[in-house]
Amino acid sequence: MERLTLVKVGGKIVEEEDSLSCLLRDFVDIPGYKALVHGGGRLATQLAGRLGVECRIVDGRRITDMETLRIITMVYAGLVNKNIVAGLQALGVNALGLTGADMNLIRSDKRPVKDIDYGYVGDVKEVDARLLAFLIGQGAVPVLAPVTHDGQGLLLNTNADTIAGETAKALAVDFDVTLIYCFEKKGVLLDEGDEDSVIESLDRATFERYAEQGVVRGGMIPKLENAFAAIDAGVRQVIITNTSGIRSNAGTHIY
Amino acid sequence: MERLTLVKVGGKIVEEEDSLSCLLRDFVDIPGYKALVHGGGRLATQLAGRLGVECRIVDGRRITDMETLRIITMVYAGLVNKNIVAGLQALGVNALGLTGADMNLIRSDKRPVKDIDYGYVGDVKEVDARLLAFLIGQGAVPVLAPVTHDGQGLLLNTNADTIAGETAKALAVDFDVTLIYCFEKKGVLLDEGDEDSVIESLDRATFERYAEQGVVRGGMIPKLENAFAAIDAGVRQVIITNTSGIRSNAGTHIY
Repeated sequence: MERLTLVKVGGKIVEEEDSLSCLLRDFVDIPGYKALVHGGGRLATQLAGRLGVECRIVDGRRITDMETLRIITMVYAGLVNKNIVAGLQALGVNALGLTGADMNLIRSDKRPVKDIDYGYVGDVKEVDARLLAFLIGQGAVPVLAPVTHDGQGLLLNTNADTIAGETAKALAVDFDVTLIYCFEKKGVLLDEGDEDSVIESLDRATFERYAEQGVVRGGMIPKLENAFAAIDAGVRQVIITNTSGIRSNAGTHIY
Repeated sequence: MERLTLVKVGGKIVEEEDSLSCLLRDFVDIPGYKALVHGGGRLATQLAGRLGVECRIVDGRRITDMETLRIITMVYAGLVNKNIVAGLQALGVNALGLTGADMNLIRSDKRPVKDIDYGYVGDVKEVDARLLAFLIGQGAVPVLAPVTHDGQGLLLNTNADTIAGETAKALAVDFDVTLIYCFEKKGVLLDEGDEDSVIESLDRATFERYAEQGVVRGGMIPKLENAFAAIDAGVRQVIITNTSGIRSNAGTHIY
């Protein structure tokens, strides 16, 4: 199978012109087939602020009312996505911007209301990567915005990490997939206070021991659970790193 | 060659939920391959108003400064485009939302400054419909937003009528194309005061006679020039009509 690298980048990187153009250059140099998943969080928060729409965040998660959903659709699927696409085209990459609604790529269910009503937030249900895999084979480079649909006409705000993981799994049918999660640190750290204490490789047994010992904790646990789920579903490796890790291949490698 | 119908709808139709859902149902019933080009003008004007961004219109054309370009990208490529895509998916149509930057579909040049500086407005230079034609053959239904790119990383606001005409021409290589321009009137009128005086069919000789006589005038002349240019470039017919003409096949037919 041909190699495909799927890179997920967070909001911080895409919201500043300098860091974005740096990222795009690194992304362009990745050999083989590739795809990009982006966030765009704070740009949406900024627009909401200018429009006088209150952003409600509970436990680090945005509550998406209808007005916020419209803002997210404008910022993620419009402004951020199309500027990345135009930027990649300028670098000779045949980018194609997509949401989960396009080509029915990612269907999700509106999250059921339990303790918290998250509003118009989607939990991924099904990824149909058939047409996407074909397009990649034709040289197209998908750029995915974190918006999906419920198949009934409703767009839904969806976690970009989840979109990256689920898309990587779906593409693993046709490609030898490496999934790179780019965030602000160099990788999973052995010691949170030491930025250079990157765990170079991690298998499930070691992860479970670290989790029990409290070496790995907090938000890193669901991130790593997702990574191992991707591996179990046929993704060859997951790398957790910062943007410079795209080029240097440094970071935490999960097999 | 297989038949393909390309429908262009103006801003008014897409900006209200009722007229949009009506349009989408009519569009879905079109037999054969199809594609949609949309505007979204007044929704962009509304957002600009809420953001306190002044909209400058000269001779009926919007002056697109950088702030306006960002708004247009958000509204046209994000909000309007993705809601149409999700709406069509709910009706069982495998819609795929695109700008001219996606798959390098439509390259344009920033309009040169002569008497008026239109700002970030693109004049279409080249349509590459190769991948698009293939996708249509695979069952995808393109939904095009009126935003293109210059190939250097810049998005450009582009007239939706022009995008429809140029895309129709490019698709005429692979398909037997009918281009439908939907606007607020039933067709080209013999008498502007009589909404029912629709000219049923029009060839170039008759058009030129009508133009000389002043029967056809104003903004209708460039619209018809575009229509005849499309015919000359291999588009089978152009129909100028209102939304109910999509279903009834009424309106002005140009051969």
